[in-house]
Amino acid sequence: MEIVTLAHGAGGRLTERLIENLFKKYLNNEYLQQGDDGAVLSLPGTKVVFSTDSFVVNPLFFPGGDIGKLAVYGTVNDLAVMGAEPLFLSLGLILEEGLALSELENVVQSIAQAAEKAGVKIVTGDTKVVEKGKGDKIYINTAGLGLISTPNNPSGKKARPGDKILVNGFIGDHGAAILAVRENIPGDFTSDCAPLNELVKPIIQEYPVHVMRDPSRGGLAATLNEIAKQSNVGIELWEEKVPIRPQVKTLCGYLGLDVYALANEGKVIMIMPSEVAEKALEKMRAHPLGKDAAIIGEVREAPAGVVYLKNRIGGERIINMPLGENLPRIC
Amino acid sequence: MEIVTLAHGAGGRLTERLIENLFKKYLNNEYLQQGDDGAVLSLPGTKVVFSTDSFVVNPLFFPGGDIGKLAVYGTVNDLAVMGAEPLFLSLGLILEEGLALSELENVVQSIAQAAEKAGVKIVTGDTKVVEKGKGDKIYINTAGLGLISTPNNPSGKKARPGDKILVNGFIGDHGAAILAVRENIPGDFTSDCAPLNELVKPIIQEYPVHVMRDPSRGGLAATLNEIAKQSNVGIELWEEKVPIRPQVKTLCGYLGLDVYALANEGKVIMIMPSEVAEKALEKMRAHPLGKDAAIIGEVREAPAGVVYLKNRIGGERIINMPLGENLPRIC
Repeated sequence: MEIVTLAHGAGGRLTERLIENLFKKYLNNEYLQQGDDGAVLSLPGTKVVFSTDSFVVNPLFFPGGDIGKLAVYGTVNDLAVMGAEPLFLSLGLILEEGLALSELENVVQSIAQAAEKAGVKIVTGDTKVVEKGKGDKIYINTAGLGLISTPNNPSGKKARPGDKILVNGFIGDHGAAILAVRENIPGDFTSDCAPLNELVKPIIQEYPVHVMRDPSRGGLAATLNEIAKQSNVGIELWEEKVPIRPQVKTLCGYLGLDVYALANEGKVIMIMPSEVAEKALEKMRAHPLGKDAAIIGEVREAPAGVVYLKNRIGGERIINMPLGENLPRIC
Repeated sequence: MEIVTLAHGAGGRLTERLIENLFKKYLNNEYLQQGDDGAVLSLPGTKVVFSTDSFVVNPLFFPGGDIGKLAVYGTVNDLAVMGAEPLFLSLGLILEEGLALSELENVVQSIAQAAEKAGVKIVTGDTKVVEKGKGDKIYINTAGLGLISTPNNPSGKKARPGDKILVNGFIGDHGAAILAVRENIPGDFTSDCAPLNELVKPIIQEYPVHVMRDPSRGGLAATLNEIAKQSNVGIELWEEKVPIRPQVKTLCGYLGLDVYALANEGKVIMIMPSEVAEKALEKMRAHPLGKDAAIIGEVREAPAGVVYLKNRIGGERIINMPLGENLPRIC
């Protein structure tokens, strides 16, 4: 079995071979062909969004995805929720000595497929290798560039009382899938890992979306608490309206976890004026990634900075910013 | 002692605290203030250079620098040698559980100072935490954006027979400093870790530089071999002209290492037409980071793809692309 050695990361002949036989083979495009220390890009617009994320998910492969897909879609989604069209990604790999080259190849193939599906190009990259026991097979960083093409400029600060809150489908699927595979829990758990740019684009172009975020690490709980704080508003969620798969609900009960704190990797939260919410929901449902979309709550003036869940019979509970220590390396 | 825990990387309250008390404290600027998933940048030009590098150097602190400085200057230099003015960096951290928060703070402070010195802004970032034994204190990824403002567009493909090869000072200092501190070898070894953008700018604006590269990992050997291959030329180096500190030469003899394969972190190689080389050298020497600059060789038509060293009495030896296995985690 061929494995990754420290020499693959030393910038010499083996690094060169990795670039030729793996990265250029699968990720090739006119930018990587330049073969220089960076990629020269022509950006036909001046309003650019720049974002970065590292991925350390364990295990590397899980139902519904793998670290490569996650690394591409994660940054694509960060750009998309900023209202930008994702165009270019960088790719930084930190490999652990001893990793099977075939496993690396599988991840690079997955990166290539994901990039193609999301319509982005990997234009520049870097590989480092650390000694066995100083990493865990593969860590990936992607940084991304996107262009803002709509005048509509959503931000976490723009939620207004009366706004409706939309989500494009079932929450907690990614977190549940990772937990189930780690803990060997049987059942139908699949990550929602997907690129949101095509789902988001027509909605943001047509409707005055105030806030748009992907509730990944820390789930809805972290994302909505951030928004409540940034916008200085209260956020009311309607328990019966939030799409949660029964098996995910059961898993959470079983493990004592809060589904609202579970990670998502193909979900977007949109907050927008009440009068356009139904139309936007319809548009969302027309896309395969939005067929289970729902309006799940409303922005309130008070209590400012607080997210709470309301059920049909009027019961309320506060959804806190998760501390999060129970879900390491979820993405 | 306060330490990094897995919860610091989980996107919840402790992540938030890290952002507020550390990243915003030291790195603050109008872009980080946006507080969204990415930074919205106004790029006043359409020809953009995009580059990325991960940094896994061991130890974190060494004579002349640390992983934070390295992470800023490394990407700044990658942009600078592409002929771009570095403007914006992203910052991705992978922390090992148990890292002292004070050590992290020292690194973030160093990042802030380096960014200020190089004139770039950290505009977006991400932090992940991995379990103890799955990392090594701190790994850093930076991606960078720069704007090309000169019509002059250097590339590894543009070396022409007759061109002169310039370097801005002593080679191998970074590699020697890391080796000496790791192996406990006494002596005056200091990394050359520095931002090259200000040194490079006036030269690239005035002279038709064909190739510009920073010979970091793999040293002059890797960089010049790449250029020889990309431009399909021979590269002749003049042994007596290459600036090498006596203690670095001695260290290499002692450890059986090739100084040409030792990493640099504040060196640039410029290849340009013979008729402008002396003038460019003068300009280089006028900058503090170029005071020991020299013309160290010449591009030849043949043997194509080969780098060789010539000494005063006519002796020649080929400088191969290093395999590099002897210098893991040099940057």
